[in-house]
Amino acid sequence: MGEDVAEGSLVWHVPDCFLPSRSSGSAKSHEAFCVLNVSPTDTAELSFTFYFADRAALSSRAELPPSRNVHFRTDQPEMIGVQLPTDVPYACRIASNVPVTVQYSRLDAQEGYALMTTNAIPVG
Amino acid sequence: MGEDVAEGSLVWHVPDCFLPSRSSGSAKSHEAFCVLNVSPTDTAELSFTFYFADRAALSSRAELPPSRNVHFRTDQPEMIGVQLPTDVPYACRIASNVPVTVQYSRLDAQEGYALMTTNAIPVG
Amino acid sequence: MGEDVAEGSLVWHVPDCFLPSRSSGSAKSHEAFCVLNVSPTDTAELSFTFYFADRAALSSRAELPPSRNVHFRTDQPEMIGVQLPTDVPYACRIASNVPVTVQYSRLDAQEGYALMTTNAIPVG
Amino acid sequence: MGEDVAEGSLVWHVPDCFLPSRSSGSAKSHEAFCVLNVSPTDTAELSFTFYFADRAALSSRAELPPSRNVHFRTDQPEMIGVQLPTDVPYACRIASNVPVTVQYSRLDAQEGYALMTTNAIPVG
Repeated sequence: MGEDVAEGSLVWHVPDCFLPSRSSGSAKSHEAFCVLNVSPTDTAELSFTFYFADRAALSSRAELPPSRNVHFRTDQPEMIGVQLPTDVPYACRIASNVPVTVQYSRLDAQEGYALMTTNAIPVG
Repeated sequence: MGEDVAEGSLVWHVPDCFLPSRSSGSAKSHEAFCVLNVSPTDTAELSFTFYFADRAALSSRAELPPSRNVHFRTDQPEMIGVQLPTDVPYACRIASNVPVTVQYSRLDAQEGYALMTTNAIPVG
Repeated sequence: MGEDVAEGSLVWHVPDCFLPSRSSGSAKSHEAFCVLNVSPTDTAELSFTFYFADRAALSSRAELPPSRNVHFRTDQPEMIGVQLPTDVPYACRIASNVPVTVQYSRLDAQEGYALMTTNAIPVG
Repeated sequence: MGEDVAEGSLVWHVPDCFLPSRSSGSAKSHEAFCVLNVSPTDTAELSFTFYFADRAALSSRAELPPSRNVHFRTDQPEMIGVQLPTDVPYACRIASNVPVTVQYSRLDAQEGYALMTTNAIPVG
């Protein structure tokens, strides 16, 4: 498992991000950047850059150990390394020093209970 | 951040678009073409072409500044550069003069509260 | 618009298809294979093959005119060219004589109101 | 149909998996890894590896006959070959001896009725 240490890409984009501040029911609206590092030996040093429509980008860092998967929740600043603004459209660029794969998901509980997910787009 | 000015592709397709005219609750049904331009220097000149089942295509233009992300909402003609018909299946082709990445999302609140998203398909 | 007649791929897979027979509310559960043909001159001759877990595959044909987009609904046999079984997991392979792009979507209204979408996977 | 026996990839990743233990209504929360094998002659020998945030990976095996599609449900250990933990973020790596395509879907009925799907990411 994970014997191929070069599975994935080094740079990924997620053009549609949004962290809702509201939740209508008992479930909390949230997003996650889910990253998989199948390398059995190398920790992935992740660099997040967050882009907006009308302001300068933000950046942060996180680590992902070898043979591990973490769902980095944007509503948990201790996971994502930065406090993100809520209710603002944004995008994310994720760079890693070793190949990883990235999927983005959102639970929108603002006015109901809706899920969406897609792969991040590999660009490097 | 964004030091690689060639991240992404120049042409993207979204084969499943649909702008609902109705919304059952307080949330408004809508779609967005979310575009990320990580170039630190170049504005992306975007050309949208909208294809239908039984009529000629429409086209429009928009701009995306360097190091910015915009979620172009199709229910806001001032964003997308054209007034699109509602309740009609269509598709979108997005071309840019510089590499960008594109994700498409829809909130369907016609009879409930449902979200869907996917990456646009890079074709050039 | 569509001046490049080679945008897309000739063969696509959708591994997760399912046509629900039930709908709990006023919205009808349905699926669509959404196909975009940006060629300004060539009609796309589409060949659908439907794979199941425990029975032989089915196949059908359809056409997509140049510069057009059709959302082929599986609950409309006249669109998809075959009567598909309901409530059965299946997959779809779509082949075209000219490059096209394909996106798959489902509205599941069996017990609520849920949407999902993804690009078909280009394989040829 | 399926005359090209090399359609797809040998290794796929799904970075965002989660099997909810709860369901609020009559629909049961579940996930599926949907795999399509269009080879008319070769059975696909599938190897699943499941990665977590804080524990060692698990693995299991399954088979997919030629010209067949199976939606491998993670709540059915007899399908997926292992009993997975519930309510825990994880990821999946799927390897096959012949080319296949893979799509991942989840019905989340914990607090409503939400669907999400995406293609697995081809990495080998």
